[in-house]
Amino acid sequence: MESFFQLKTSEEVFRIIDQFGPSGDETIPLEDALGRVLRRDIRSEEDLPHFFRSVMDGYAVRARDTFGAGESLPALLEIGGEVLMGQDSGMVVGQGQAVRISTGGMLPEKADGVVMVEHTHLLDENTLEVSRAISPLENTIQPGDDFRRGEIVFRKGHVLRPQDLGLLAGLGQAEVSLYPKPRVAIISTGDEIVSINDHPGPGQVRDINRYTLGALCRRVGADPVHMGLSSDNFESLKEMVENAIRTSDTVWISGGSSVGTRDMTLKVFEGLRDFELLVHGISISPGKPTIIGKADSKPIIGLPGHVASALVVAEIFLTRLISRLSGCTDTDEGFHAQVEAILSRNLESASGREDYIRVKLTQQGERLLAEPIFGKSGLISTLVEADGLIRIDMNAEGLYEGQRVTVRLNGGTR
Amino acid sequence: MESFFQLKTSEEVFRIIDQFGPSGDETIPLEDALGRVLRRDIRSEEDLPHFFRSVMDGYAVRARDTFGAGESLPALLEIGGEVLMGQDSGMVVGQGQAVRISTGGMLPEKADGVVMVEHTHLLDENTLEVSRAISPLENTIQPGDDFRRGEIVFRKGHVLRPQDLGLLAGLGQAEVSLYPKPRVAIISTGDEIVSINDHPGPGQVRDINRYTLGALCRRVGADPVHMGLSSDNFESLKEMVENAIRTSDTVWISGGSSVGTRDMTLKVFEGLRDFELLVHGISISPGKPTIIGKADSKPIIGLPGHVASALVVAEIFLTRLISRLSGCTDTDEGFHAQVEAILSRNLESASGREDYIRVKLTQQGERLLAEPIFGKSGLISTLVEADGLIRIDMNAEGLYEGQRVTVRLNGGTR
Repeated sequence: MESFFQLKTSEEVFRIIDQFGPSGDETIPLEDALGRVLRRDIRSEEDLPHFFRSVMDGYAVRARDTFGAGESLPALLEIGGEVLMGQDSGMVVGQGQAVRISTGGMLPEKADGVVMVEHTHLLDENTLEVSRAISPLENTIQPGDDFRRGEIVFRKGHVLRPQDLGLLAGLGQAEVSLYPKPRVAIISTGDEIVSINDHPGPGQVRDINRYTLGALCRRVGADPVHMGLSSDNFESLKEMVENAIRTSDTVWISGGSSVGTRDMTLKVFEGLRDFELLVHGISISPGKPTIIGKADSKPIIGLPGHVASALVVAEIFLTRLISRLSGCTDTDEGFHAQVEAILSRNLESASGREDYIRVKLTQQGERLLAEPIFGKSGLISTLVEADGLIRIDMNAEGLYEGQRVTVRLNGGTR
Repeated sequence: MESFFQLKTSEEVFRIIDQFGPSGDETIPLEDALGRVLRRDIRSEEDLPHFFRSVMDGYAVRARDTFGAGESLPALLEIGGEVLMGQDSGMVVGQGQAVRISTGGMLPEKADGVVMVEHTHLLDENTLEVSRAISPLENTIQPGDDFRRGEIVFRKGHVLRPQDLGLLAGLGQAEVSLYPKPRVAIISTGDEIVSINDHPGPGQVRDINRYTLGALCRRVGADPVHMGLSSDNFESLKEMVENAIRTSDTVWISGGSSVGTRDMTLKVFEGLRDFELLVHGISISPGKPTIIGKADSKPIIGLPGHVASALVVAEIFLTRLISRLSGCTDTDEGFHAQVEAILSRNLESASGREDYIRVKLTQQGERLLAEPIFGKSGLISTLVEADGLIRIDMNAEGLYEGQRVTVRLNGGTR
């Protein structure tokens, strides 16, 4: 069978994944929108700030009145009152006058700058010494300095971070229009797989992929929908997949480990209405026997049954798929959740294949050391020991001890 | 007032924060435990795996029967049947016999290794040519290879990642005992602050800290509890704080921006039963006027009202506080959510003070460039433009263009 594989490179697979996009929309309270993706451009409906503000504690003055002032020759100003927070003081700063103002306070009329309190000295309750000159507008922000009315604040496809929610709050956007979270149907197959609640008999193991894949979905902003376990039975798997396509945005099947199951998964896919096979094998290790297709325009994924392989494929490719299904257009995918470290030993690699190696990170003084984790491929403990993955390029013959490597953290961020 | 400040260094503040810990416990389904913290050590209640498994597709044999086999002189074995997945085949592999087995299959009796299918050739339906010798146990894992019964799998204080849920599933832990998520009471004060649902009048601004701080809490695994807005009124603020202490694990007040409000926050704290002042000012910029105390053994925080300052202090110190209140003992805090980049320009810094500078990341070919973002401190747009923070050490006079810097991503991971 393997000889019929037309292995795709990871770059080709990324391009195939990038053809998928979001659908639907929903409007939710701003408070709940963290990590969600904007469905529309957001424009400021008002100037932000909407009034002339001080950014320092000090005195609102006419800047001209401080010109030439210095430590040895301070300017003397008459104190004309105090601006209270959250109000238009209604005051006018006359020539030679200063009005007490706090950070965030609204400048009184005719004032055009603020002298920091550190550069003033009260001679008596009516007289202020100013020991430094200010320029007009100094220590203030003007209406629209952040955003002008009508200006685009965020583009659609942007993922909302804490500071973004802050800005939207500042603009009074109590609700936001978002793409729905993608729903990922997860199916585990294999005659040897039993539910976590069952006691596995001889030759049986509990369903692990359900939990690793489901948690990965949640971590990157998708909702897992657990369809359950399927035995290696064509009809029951086909029915489960068809049901999953109807109710979800993408379907992920982690195959039983046997060759027979892998073949059956593909046969079930090919029996779906409008099925198109897009990827039949990827030139990576682990994860080669991955299948990607689409049915009813939705991505349908066949993952290796092997726990570690399934998780690597999901981390590398399916987080990108979720990003696309989420409507995310931010180009920051390269930034997040990776660290640089020094490789602790030489690593060989077959060329013509991209390798992903699990590593453990240890801090050694100032340097972070990436130690490759080896161990028989069936072990789960290697997966748990690892902090992340390093990638060996298709054209590289390996990596060297002491080399700087980029470690993609696997679920390491909380 | 400032002269009474006994500024603490960030290292001192971290040590103070580290005195706080988790309380309570709850047991929840494994499925919902992603990112949560274990309250007890977890021991394996059984050997994992619990049977002698193949990790390859191939043939179960007696290794001795393959000794000396090679391409030019293959061993000939008699095919004795096939192991079905999920079952004890009940078969015995006799001398000179081979039994078909799939990855994950249970080895039949007397077999002690697996020949990969790639190293075999079927001569006829009963006869197998083996072209490579295997050692005993080759391509198999034995009972307990992952974890032996009674062995500690995770220590209490460990934060559960997707792969950890997988292992716990493999061990049949359908429920886990966890520390509760910390509840963080959030209060915004300031006469100039209005709710997001109100239209701000002259001199007024909408409450932003509620959203930035609340979202940051969620991102690091805490539940924000919004106590609401308090005007700059001693009695109403005191009542709100006392109520917050009763119902939450920590209380965060972001002060109005005025000096008066800052003073009042401290007075309210000092009026609490059993209040102890731990930090009154930190030698960092921004964020100097931060207050940390404890009342009823719970950490009580006074943050600057300034949106960007409050968020920096929360990112640097309060995420650590949440980690402690969560019971997290993992030492991986240094790993997560940071990238290395090249600084785009020189940065000066006052020595004797730690500086946090917001930067924007841009990919330039292979290198990631960190561009400092300047702009008036009252602007929210600078916060939104930024991808992360870089730190200038207390003893450094600055950083140089072209220098490699570590960028702590601010909410950049999803």
